[in-house]
Amino acid sequence: MAKTNPGRFFEDYKVGQVIAHAVPRTLSGGERAAYHALYPARHALYSSDEFARASGLSAAPLDDMIAFHTVFGKTVPDVSLNAVANLGYAEGRFLKPVYAGDTLRSESEVIGVKQNSNGKSGVVYVRTRGLNQRDEVVLEYVRWVMVRKRDLDAPAPETVIPELAKVVDPADLAIPEGLDFTNYDFTLSGEPHRWGDYEVGETIDHVDGVTIEEAEHMLATRLWQNTAKVHFDATFRPDGQRLIYGGHVISMARALSFNGLANAQMIVGLNGGAHANPCFSGDTVKAWSEVLDKAETSAPGVGAIRLRLVATKGGEPFALKGEDGKYRPEVLLDLDYWALMPV
Amino acid sequence: MAKTNPGRFFEDYKVGQVIAHAVPRTLSGGERAAYHALYPARHALYSSDEFARASGLSAAPLDDMIAFHTVFGKTVPDVSLNAVANLGYAEGRFLKPVYAGDTLRSESEVIGVKQNSNGKSGVVYVRTRGLNQRDEVVLEYVRWVMVRKRDLDAPAPETVIPELAKVVDPADLAIPEGLDFTNYDFTLSGEPHRWGDYEVGETIDHVDGVTIEEAEHMLATRLWQNTAKVHFDATFRPDGQRLIYGGHVISMARALSFNGLANAQMIVGLNGGAHANPCFSGDTVKAWSEVLDKAETSAPGVGAIRLRLVATKGGEPFALKGEDGKYRPEVLLDLDYWALMPV
Amino acid sequence: MAKTNPGRFFEDYKVGQVIAHAVPRTLSGGERAAYHALYPARHALYSSDEFARASGLSAAPLDDMIAFHTVFGKTVPDVSLNAVANLGYAEGRFLKPVYAGDTLRSESEVIGVKQNSNGKSGVVYVRTRGLNQRDEVVLEYVRWVMVRKRDLDAPAPETVIPELAKVVDPADLAIPEGLDFTNYDFTLSGEPHRWGDYEVGETIDHVDGVTIEEAEHMLATRLWQNTAKVHFDATFRPDGQRLIYGGHVISMARALSFNGLANAQMIVGLNGGAHANPCFSGDTVKAWSEVLDKAETSAPGVGAIRLRLVATKGGEPFALKGEDGKYRPEVLLDLDYWALMPV
Repeated sequence: MAKTNPGRFFEDYKVGQVIAHAVPRTLSGGERAAYHALYPARHALYSSDEFARASGLSAAPLDDMIAFHTVFGKTVPDVSLNAVANLGYAEGRFLKPVYAGDTLRSESEVIGVKQNSNGKSGVVYVRTRGLNQRDEVVLEYVRWVMVRKRDLDAPAPETVIPELAKVVDPADLAIPEGLDFTNYDFTLSGEPHRWGDYEVGETIDHVDGVTIEEAEHMLATRLWQNTAKVHFDATFRPDGQRLIYGGHVISMARALSFNGLANAQMIVGLNGGAHANPCFSGDTVKAWSEVLDKAETSAPGVGAIRLRLVATKGGEPFALKGEDGKYRPEVLLDLDYWALMPV
Repeated sequence: MAKTNPGRFFEDYKVGQVIAHAVPRTLSGGERAAYHALYPARHALYSSDEFARASGLSAAPLDDMIAFHTVFGKTVPDVSLNAVANLGYAEGRFLKPVYAGDTLRSESEVIGVKQNSNGKSGVVYVRTRGLNQRDEVVLEYVRWVMVRKRDLDAPAPETVIPELAKVVDPADLAIPEGLDFTNYDFTLSGEPHRWGDYEVGETIDHVDGVTIEEAEHMLATRLWQNTAKVHFDATFRPDGQRLIYGGHVISMARALSFNGLANAQMIVGLNGGAHANPCFSGDTVKAWSEVLDKAETSAPGVGAIRLRLVATKGGEPFALKGEDGKYRPEVLLDLDYWALMPV
Repeated sequence: MAKTNPGRFFEDYKVGQVIAHAVPRTLSGGERAAYHALYPARHALYSSDEFARASGLSAAPLDDMIAFHTVFGKTVPDVSLNAVANLGYAEGRFLKPVYAGDTLRSESEVIGVKQNSNGKSGVVYVRTRGLNQRDEVVLEYVRWVMVRKRDLDAPAPETVIPELAKVVDPADLAIPEGLDFTNYDFTLSGEPHRWGDYEVGETIDHVDGVTIEEAEHMLATRLWQNTAKVHFDATFRPDGQRLIYGGHVISMARALSFNGLANAQMIVGLNGGAHANPCFSGDTVKAWSEVLDKAETSAPGVGAIRLRLVATKGGEPFALKGEDGKYRPEVLLDLDYWALMPV
């Protein structure tokens, strides 16, 4: 009677199943400090209680990606322990800011399954929700992963592929209660560029780069209680390399994007994302962005901007795919999100 | 008049002497976050205020090993600065949970001394107590170390070897006031296995491994204000290696043991422990456990389980000693402790 | 219209100009824990709320260098992004302790400019102030840096070299309100040596050493939101090395100086400082101090001591400059500061 968690295999997922993930987590100023040590994060709303209060919030929330990683990390033992690949994200919405003192837990609903033609694995779609101690949903997103079968002879389930929005409708973005950018201080925020200064199609090279160390990505990944072996155990892969958690690259790229997008303060939507190539220790991560869309919001002084955020390890900015339509080898991440900016 | 601390030598210890250790420390959510970044710690009672409250506590305590390391670290300048080896632990009891905001200090009583036959060093036994800001003892343990003599001509003291219990009597374990596991949530805790599901003699391979980096063990060791040169200064040992603090291996193994022992929530007793072989950067630490004993407690829904926790760097699980009766070369740690589980 | 920050060039600085730096920062117990993980910091007043209260303060302040690094980090995008060298510090005063919960921001006034004779760069002098959420100045210091010109044809500005005090007059040191060392506990602080025990001219070898890792100095530098590329991007310098933030060396040396100066509790003045040689990963940092001066203060039981703090990478202690009058190649830092001690 083995007591360790073998993880779920493809045939264990049934559409409609709801999985409550383990190990709720109370967050504090400690996680915020660790986040600032791990990433060059500087968005003022998340750095200063005073700046957040001047924007109508009660205090500086924890970085949106702290909430995301915390919620995501809890899903790993149930969703991706036997995953071959993390295939995509969709319909992500950040619904409530998370503050120091909040306790988060996660649950996921299986919304689709499709066995691969090779019969050895299949794709599982889950909608994950992060909830706080008041049972309020703080964020939700759809993720799909390729998972191995335990028993190759297990019958293929009926294929269910959920219909997923390519983009979160800006009307569906949740604006934090009370958010007001009419008295926004562009000096304290770090850049003068407002929502009106960005044009759809515009690209921004964020210039700065960070060379990644083993210790750093492991500290980060553990911080979110993400336990996937491949990130920690150098004896796990035949090449002796530890694969860096894709979320580490997301946070690094987002933090680097401050330089040019200092006023894209709050992430409110996650339209899609691909971890195009693996990232390893020693890689120097840089980032560039493209403005994909803009929308007005109902909150005073607040606009929404849709951004493509690309992380690379080398190469020139603004090159995403090759002539074959595939991601270039130096592209690590292609993320599509909505952020809130002062208009 | 040198002002730096030369540390105590063997002949400086007298049975009955009480040493008040320096530098009290106030702990916060920051140390908890750092602990989660350094170790894959996931025991729910220490991760979530809500889970702790549902178990009858006021909030999530700081991990028991945070308390241990903090108390231990303070003893280093007085006890082990000139130590040749950390020989063993006994009679360890965790008496009060430690919470964010508590301030800890340490004191040690010398309870035994025995000069080695070579005349160059001796064994010193101390009983160390950690106290909080209300002067409550939060934990105590006996440790013995081999310490060099300053003056080889100093006379040998009368040998005093304390009589130490091989195991803390379960009747002497301190159960935190109010602890109640009758409404324990096995979904949130991460595993269904309860006290009744474990049998004496049962062994558990915790499966996961972590390859250790220099930066990580130094961050951890400094966090506990442990200042032993050998952990930090690569020029100190002739081989240029930094010896990893044994407590780092304890915390790593304990955190890895979540996978199979997720419900062994609180450490309440430390029966013994040996740092069997040194650990260095680049080693991949894995862990296995053996159930040594079980006992009932007076608290509702709470059982005690006695566990052997073994950390290794390579090799197969469950192999502890060779035919010569000595620890196998890949064994790093052999720890014997009591934990509290839902029955 | 590039949106990233190109930084200011020499010709952009005008004497009298006041630059409000971006991204205010709320500090918490998290930053304190991170500081203890990054440096072997043990001064009791900053480690224990109880010790600080016994000294007349409301709680343990955050380490003075946390305040310094936080304030300094904010100036980097405006002052030193195009700096060739950080030349010196003067007239530094720590005016108010910074506590967990405080929010800091920075502003700098340009107080001097001098174009170099090569016409390619110039020296800029700024007086930087750190302010808390009540607009109280918590610290101030003068720094001068060599900055490149954008346009080599830009006319040289009128040379203004500020008159800077070689030493902060002890009468100008700010003693924290309520500070009282009359009941100082020399056991808890870690050493018996009081102000009266130190003589001008006395030197102290702090003995301990720390070998520095890439991950650690990057974590530290990011923690202060210091974004200078040269610390993070291994592809930035032709030699592939990441230059370690000079402030990392200051904090490391100051923490190491506990061993011999455990009672030099609070830093209140920064008379001068030079980053004599660059520090890289793999260097083993050690420190020594020299007592430069002593002064009485108006606070009960509190004396001021002026110290030279030297950090080295190898070599013997107490050797500072060669026969050519230049810093020896192993000297990393030569810092001159005032601290408060129990008399």
